[in-house]
Amino acid sequence: MSKRIREILGWYASDNAGTLTNLARLLNHGYLAGTGRLVILPVDQGFEHGPARSFAVNPPAYHPHYHFELAIEARCSAYAAPLGFLEAGATDFAGQVPLILKLNNHDVLHDEKDPLSSVTGSVRDALRLGCAAVGFTIYPGSAHCNTMYQQFREIAAEAKACGLAAVCWSYPRGSGLSKEGETAIDVVAYAAQIAAQLGAHLIKVKLPSAHIEQPEAKKVYEKTKVPIGTLADRVRHVVQSAFDGRRIVIFSGGAAKEDDNAVLDEILAIRDGGGFGTIIGRNSFQRRRSDAIELLTKIMKIYAGEMQ
Amino acid sequence: MSKRIREILGWYASDNAGTLTNLARLLNHGYLAGTGRLVILPVDQGFEHGPARSFAVNPPAYHPHYHFELAIEARCSAYAAPLGFLEAGATDFAGQVPLILKLNNHDVLHDEKDPLSSVTGSVRDALRLGCAAVGFTIYPGSAHCNTMYQQFREIAAEAKACGLAAVCWSYPRGSGLSKEGETAIDVVAYAAQIAAQLGAHLIKVKLPSAHIEQPEAKKVYEKTKVPIGTLADRVRHVVQSAFDGRRIVIFSGGAAKEDDNAVLDEILAIRDGGGFGTIIGRNSFQRRRSDAIELLTKIMKIYAGEMQ
Amino acid sequence: MSKRIREILGWYASDNAGTLTNLARLLNHGYLAGTGRLVILPVDQGFEHGPARSFAVNPPAYHPHYHFELAIEARCSAYAAPLGFLEAGATDFAGQVPLILKLNNHDVLHDEKDPLSSVTGSVRDALRLGCAAVGFTIYPGSAHCNTMYQQFREIAAEAKACGLAAVCWSYPRGSGLSKEGETAIDVVAYAAQIAAQLGAHLIKVKLPSAHIEQPEAKKVYEKTKVPIGTLADRVRHVVQSAFDGRRIVIFSGGAAKEDDNAVLDEILAIRDGGGFGTIIGRNSFQRRRSDAIELLTKIMKIYAGEMQ
Amino acid sequence: MSKRIREILGWYASDNAGTLTNLARLLNHGYLAGTGRLVILPVDQGFEHGPARSFAVNPPAYHPHYHFELAIEARCSAYAAPLGFLEAGATDFAGQVPLILKLNNHDVLHDEKDPLSSVTGSVRDALRLGCAAVGFTIYPGSAHCNTMYQQFREIAAEAKACGLAAVCWSYPRGSGLSKEGETAIDVVAYAAQIAAQLGAHLIKVKLPSAHIEQPEAKKVYEKTKVPIGTLADRVRHVVQSAFDGRRIVIFSGGAAKEDDNAVLDEILAIRDGGGFGTIIGRNSFQRRRSDAIELLTKIMKIYAGEMQ
Amino acid sequence: MSKRIREILGWYASDNAGTLTNLARLLNHGYLAGTGRLVILPVDQGFEHGPARSFAVNPPAYHPHYHFELAIEARCSAYAAPLGFLEAGATDFAGQVPLILKLNNHDVLHDEKDPLSSVTGSVRDALRLGCAAVGFTIYPGSAHCNTMYQQFREIAAEAKACGLAAVCWSYPRGSGLSKEGETAIDVVAYAAQIAAQLGAHLIKVKLPSAHIEQPEAKKVYEKTKVPIGTLADRVRHVVQSAFDGRRIVIFSGGAAKEDDNAVLDEILAIRDGGGFGTIIGRNSFQRRRSDAIELLTKIMKIYAGEMQ
Repeated sequence: MSKRIREILGWYASDNAGTLTNLARLLNHGYLAGTGRLVILPVDQGFEHGPARSFAVNPPAYHPHYHFELAIEARCSAYAAPLGFLEAGATDFAGQVPLILKLNNHDVLHDEKDPLSSVTGSVRDALRLGCAAVGFTIYPGSAHCNTMYQQFREIAAEAKACGLAAVCWSYPRGSGLSKEGETAIDVVAYAAQIAAQLGAHLIKVKLPSAHIEQPEAKKVYEKTKVPIGTLADRVRHVVQSAFDGRRIVIFSGGAAKEDDNAVLDEILAIRDGGGFGTIIGRNSFQRRRSDAIELLTKIMKIYAGEMQ
Repeated sequence: MSKRIREILGWYASDNAGTLTNLARLLNHGYLAGTGRLVILPVDQGFEHGPARSFAVNPPAYHPHYHFELAIEARCSAYAAPLGFLEAGATDFAGQVPLILKLNNHDVLHDEKDPLSSVTGSVRDALRLGCAAVGFTIYPGSAHCNTMYQQFREIAAEAKACGLAAVCWSYPRGSGLSKEGETAIDVVAYAAQIAAQLGAHLIKVKLPSAHIEQPEAKKVYEKTKVPIGTLADRVRHVVQSAFDGRRIVIFSGGAAKEDDNAVLDEILAIRDGGGFGTIIGRNSFQRRRSDAIELLTKIMKIYAGEMQ
Repeated sequence: MSKRIREILGWYASDNAGTLTNLARLLNHGYLAGTGRLVILPVDQGFEHGPARSFAVNPPAYHPHYHFELAIEARCSAYAAPLGFLEAGATDFAGQVPLILKLNNHDVLHDEKDPLSSVTGSVRDALRLGCAAVGFTIYPGSAHCNTMYQQFREIAAEAKACGLAAVCWSYPRGSGLSKEGETAIDVVAYAAQIAAQLGAHLIKVKLPSAHIEQPEAKKVYEKTKVPIGTLADRVRHVVQSAFDGRRIVIFSGGAAKEDDNAVLDEILAIRDGGGFGTIIGRNSFQRRRSDAIELLTKIMKIYAGEMQ
Repeated sequence: MSKRIREILGWYASDNAGTLTNLARLLNHGYLAGTGRLVILPVDQGFEHGPARSFAVNPPAYHPHYHFELAIEARCSAYAAPLGFLEAGATDFAGQVPLILKLNNHDVLHDEKDPLSSVTGSVRDALRLGCAAVGFTIYPGSAHCNTMYQQFREIAAEAKACGLAAVCWSYPRGSGLSKEGETAIDVVAYAAQIAAQLGAHLIKVKLPSAHIEQPEAKKVYEKTKVPIGTLADRVRHVVQSAFDGRRIVIFSGGAAKEDDNAVLDEILAIRDGGGFGTIIGRNSFQRRRSDAIELLTKIMKIYAGEMQ
Repeated sequence: MSKRIREILGWYASDNAGTLTNLARLLNHGYLAGTGRLVILPVDQGFEHGPARSFAVNPPAYHPHYHFELAIEARCSAYAAPLGFLEAGATDFAGQVPLILKLNNHDVLHDEKDPLSSVTGSVRDALRLGCAAVGFTIYPGSAHCNTMYQQFREIAAEAKACGLAAVCWSYPRGSGLSKEGETAIDVVAYAAQIAAQLGAHLIKVKLPSAHIEQPEAKKVYEKTKVPIGTLADRVRHVVQSAFDGRRIVIFSGGAAKEDDNAVLDEILAIRDGGGFGTIIGRNSFQRRRSDAIELLTKIMKIYAGEMQ
């Protein structure tokens, strides 16, 4: 095992051997094995946005095997999806790519100001499907944040006891925040801290803007001159906010972009800011398979230090 | 076992032998045994609409044995009903037709904008009554969708662990949708996707109209030119939306129609669009018994490819 | 055992021997033993209306033993009461009359438009007190109907597993209904159907009026010409609505009436309409003991076919 | 054991030997041992009203041992208090006075129209602290009455299974009642009935006024001429309302009074009306210790028939 | 073991040997070992206020090991933090300082008038991390106080059964109180009483002002002339309100102060008023490490009687 992976596992010294083994499975799989970086393929958009909005642009993606194959062929670190998608392929592709079962989901047929995802799977489901980790979304800023924090806490505790890793999607949203505030640097850093304090092993956040949402925080950022001018600066601050870099923080790829370079520029900033990688859904499966593999390979090369 | 049934069972490779056996029981029973198509008799209207509205037009249908006999005589694939109706006949007709215990129900004595069905039975009830599957209704678009998704998830998980199949009635309704939106093509396809992601083995939806409800979806349907012009097109899109056809999607027969041909035209469209069959209540038990059997037989012949 | 009792027990073929035994205990006790008819003494008015409104008119009725003695002396089929009243006599009168523990209750110190009774006892209590059955009230039409249906379902499931019978008081009330609608024929028939579908062995409803509450139902009643002109007609329709007479439906006696004949006229109608009997509280314990026994005896003679 | 105590225990024939033993402990302790009367010292005002309002007038009462000592020295039947106060002395004074653990409490830092107490202890706590009984407050008339009735029911069931006695503080309050109605004779009698029906062994109510709150009840009180003219009459009616005197009903002492005679007059009325005793907090621990013991002794002498 | 520690442990005579051992661990660790005084380092501000507001002024504090090291080097009695922070160091620093796992937390991304913290850890987590105690915040005065009291009660009961100590942060807040009332002397004293009655071993409150919030309490304070003129007087009253000093009451350090003397003046008042110590977060980790250690040492010297 590489020195870097040993170092990272050392940050999780309170975890049992089972969880450390599964963290190692994620860190030692695919193109980026051993580098301490991760590129994960997540496909929950069918639930979150609806099937046509997710897959009509690239119809082979309606098929649940498509994403297993994409993650395997592109040599991603892991594939993350809701219960149905994993059940539809976990046996067929057993052992070929680490799986993350997404344990809660939200759809847009009913809109609400303060979102609360539904719990759609269990740690026991993750175990029977051979997963390495469970994933869960919290919405700090929502009036229902208590419910979600407590659900995550219980799921993370059970996952840890069962030797799985716990991944937290920490996405600020809800009546406590302005729209712009959802990606404000203070808010994203705070979201990373909350996920870390709740005991997440991996934390997924959105790329932050330079906006500062909370007046009390603004005073401190200005007084202490926290560097947030560039995207790399902001990534660095978010990583620092998750236990000074001792928790794995990865960044989401966001909406589909036609221009590969726009995607790659973000990857460079994540790398330079010390981010641990990317979770990239729409920018992979909403491209043709060959284009997606090409883009994913470029991303991994950047993280591997093989490309600037 | 026919090749088609083996193929279908192959889609559920993550399920245990018990559940596969019960799926096979449904697929290998009655007129359509081995074809991969299903015609199911559901009778929950006594609870959902009241006894007179359901049975006064054909009074023998007040008797719980009537529906067992109808399903058996017409050679349906299965009979689905709430706890009381199944308790009142399961022993008398044990082993003669696969049973589906409907585990939640809703009545209309109290009206609400955002419906939530009551849980009226359990997986344990299904086991003691000898059922092959449990059924559950979710209302995507309702403010209570979280509750229903989570109830279904728990029930489906328990059913799977006990070797039963899980059937999801996915009926968009509630304050998140317009009345027309309840059967909009984007909404019905989305409802099928949600049920599939929640881990349903069989999915029951309504026949979709060509209306598109959600502006964000409309853009995609138009841009990617998803064919939705004919009913068969729309059935095909809904089936595609449930894991590219790797989940069994059946369509409801809707309100009672006096004209048999109106019913049969829909069956032809379902067949041509690749739908897996029909769940047909009011158009069967609200006819005289002989008329119902005649109509059901015609429907099954269409699905069996013996009639155009 | 009489042929009629064997026939009735045959309707409950899905139940275990314990529950059938307890149903038989109810059907084979007292004056009406073996006739398939029941007269039950219920005394929960102390909780539901308050002690003075219930007992001041006949003060010996404050004493919990009074009702045991009345039920035994009058040879009723069973005595039904809340936890406290049964605890206060179950040991003293053990084995002398079948007991039904009423598991939820409601008081009028806090008024609400959508009532929800409190759960005030358990199946385990019924077992330790030697009861033959548990009783539970649901209020179809209340915004809280989901809660009550689900409570009843769980209680009925536990009762059945423990070999007890489950009695459902199905009383439409709440914001979904007009005051007149609470006893409308369509609504009472619907309430009987709901209780039957929820798995009740015995169903208690109020005597229905000829009013029809729901417009959708009204169309059907008129079109199919359901006979509802006389009270006997309406009783017959309600019994039909509970699985075509294959569930035991009994009718409540309502408010205290000074005139015995008014009570007896209702009994005749129930008998003629095929009702299974009466649950009669205020018209028994709010009379002097000797008057009550006289009236109860007349009622039983009518049901036994010994009096017109 | 005295004949009277044997008689009282006979009312609880459904209870197990453990609970009967603990009832006997309460009835056979202290000055009034064997008389069938009880004087209980309750000290939950620190929680209910705050420490200074409770103890500043007699600062030794801040100390948790003070109340154990007072109850022991005055030879009270029992000492009742919340978890913290009992934990702070139960070991030190083990076996010297029967203890009642008060299992719910309410504070006034947040005011609400419909009060709901917090559950602050458990039957298991009562067992480990060597208590003879648990106590619980319900507020009939509150919109939260369902919650409290159900909590009491569960606690009482567990207490009975563990051989403890269950004491119910039944205090009408909330939006269903006027302020005057909280102590109206019909309401207090109803509150006693509810507690009895919920299965309480001992019932604590406030002394009732001659006001009648509920119009439906008023008609009955007037028509049947229930005597409520004197306080003794009203006590008698409340005791009658709790199973015709077959449940132990005790009355609270109310706010602190400077004049001992005002207290003693109430005691005389309780005695003459057949009440089983008094639960007296503020009128004992808000006096100097010697004054309190003197007053408590006078009260007990009245109940013992040694003083008029 | 010192006489003082034996005396303090004697106040908790109802606790088991496990809990007494852990209380002794807290009282016998660090600079103040054996004195009966405590200085605890709490670091939950990352969750409660956000990472930048907490740590940007002293960036080494982003690192979870920083606080373990600070508590160890300064010889604090214990270190208290949420799950994430303890998991990130408990193994690395095992056995070097007693740990308190903070079991609920609240963030400010969603503001509410009536706060309710999320449960973010469990007693089981505390056990696996080797903690001596669990901590929990209640907000008396909040509309959600019932929820929090009940959560604390359950956690405290489980902690006691597992041999841990239970620390209650009792912070009045919410719609029941004015802003000024949150630190009013009557309210803080009441908050200490509530925590004590709920069974807390250690109680943490804010330093009280001389304001009196509740009119009913004001009458009593004035009539009985409770001394509240100086901070030491008020500390003495709060300690008295927690079982006459038989529960360990410590005071929070409040917001960061630039002037060390302002901090030390408060310490002197706590000491003179009989307070048991201080829980000091922002005034320690928001200073440079050497400054923090210097200040903490001064504080401990005051409590140890080595400095005035």
